[in-house]
Amino acid sequence: MVSKEEKSEETRQEIMEATFRALCKHGYANLTMQKIANESNKSKSSLHYHYDTKENLIVEFIEYLLEGFREVMVPNKENPLDRLNGLIDRMLYGLEENEDPEKFHTALIELSSQAPYQKSIRDQISINDNEIHRIIAEIIEEGIDEEVFREVDPDVVASLIISTIDGGRLRQISTNQEASDEVRHSLDQFINSYLLLDH
Amino acid sequence: MVSKEEKSEETRQEIMEATFRALCKHGYANLTMQKIANESNKSKSSLHYHYDTKENLIVEFIEYLLEGFREVMVPNKENPLDRLNGLIDRMLYGLEENEDPEKFHTALIELSSQAPYQKSIRDQISINDNEIHRIIAEIIEEGIDEEVFREVDPDVVASLIISTIDGGRLRQISTNQEASDEVRHSLDQFINSYLLLDH
Repeated sequence: MVSKEEKSEETRQEIMEATFRALCKHGYANLTMQKIANESNKSKSSLHYHYDTKENLIVEFIEYLLEGFREVMVPNKENPLDRLNGLIDRMLYGLEENEDPEKFHTALIELSSQAPYQKSIRDQISINDNEIHRIIAEIIEEGIDEEVFREVDPDVVASLIISTIDGGRLRQISTNQEASDEVRHSLDQFINSYLLLDH
Repeated sequence: MVSKEEKSEETRQEIMEATFRALCKHGYANLTMQKIANESNKSKSSLHYHYDTKENLIVEFIEYLLEGFREVMVPNKENPLDRLNGLIDRMLYGLEENEDPEKFHTALIELSSQAPYQKSIRDQISINDNEIHRIIAEIIEEGIDEEVFREVDPDVVASLIISTIDGGRLRQISTNQEASDEVRHSLDQFINSYLLLDH
């Protein structure tokens, strides 16, 4: 097996995009290296050359998701309120325009349900969760500094927001309710009537 | 196959408790009628006599969970604040004392991740979700009537609370974070600094 550094960024990007498509199409339980290969211009043996197990590939895929999330969240130019609303929208409705968020979130939740049994996956999900938590808390801190938000505990509010979004995604895929819209509306009310400072 | 009405309440209770134990032990993906039978005093063929498929049995199990939840939530004597806090605790930390909430929530989330593919399971999860939503909204309405809570929109706050709990459970099982405690603390802050009326 070759180390991460030895495969080109292009190869990695290609494999990660194929993994995304394969996950949306087949879910995680039915995912195989062959199905990922089918979505790429690589052979199954070439995938195995870069990643010795499906688990290793998936761990890198979860890491890749975080990088994509960071890239989208980087522009610091918007004000804290717009950044917070943008983050909530992206997490509920998807990062990319051509993405089917329900299929993708179904695969992510399937993956999360395996995390108790697969330490490397749980560790990487923990890193992503921590980082998204940190980004939300940072936006809230900025909002407090700029006197847009009330003086709340940023960690407590970040925990509420990230959990609400995760729960909304879970309820969206597992019920007939329009839970994403419901949660978006609830978070709007929460932000407007609790978080925003009256002027 | 015999209709629901024809099997005794005792038989049903026995099968449902066995299903609960088997789910906690093996998860949903690996659950079989044989494994449920192993947890009960019934044979596999006796289980099949009462439920023609695993899916039918699981749908009734999800219904049974809701009944248990309703029974626990029935005592209306407590004040709305205590009832709301009791409900949050039970959803985050389990209904029964001898229950391992993480194992049980792992199985529930595995089950939820299959809901997009299995309509009967999704329909029953939707009924449970709606009913829990309704119970929370009702507690909030009572609190508003009794001038304990501020005049919020009960549906909006119920949606926020149920989603936060669901997301907290998901994060608890899929990360190394103590997400249940984190969410319990965030909801405390939310209730104290937003929902409770200042007196």
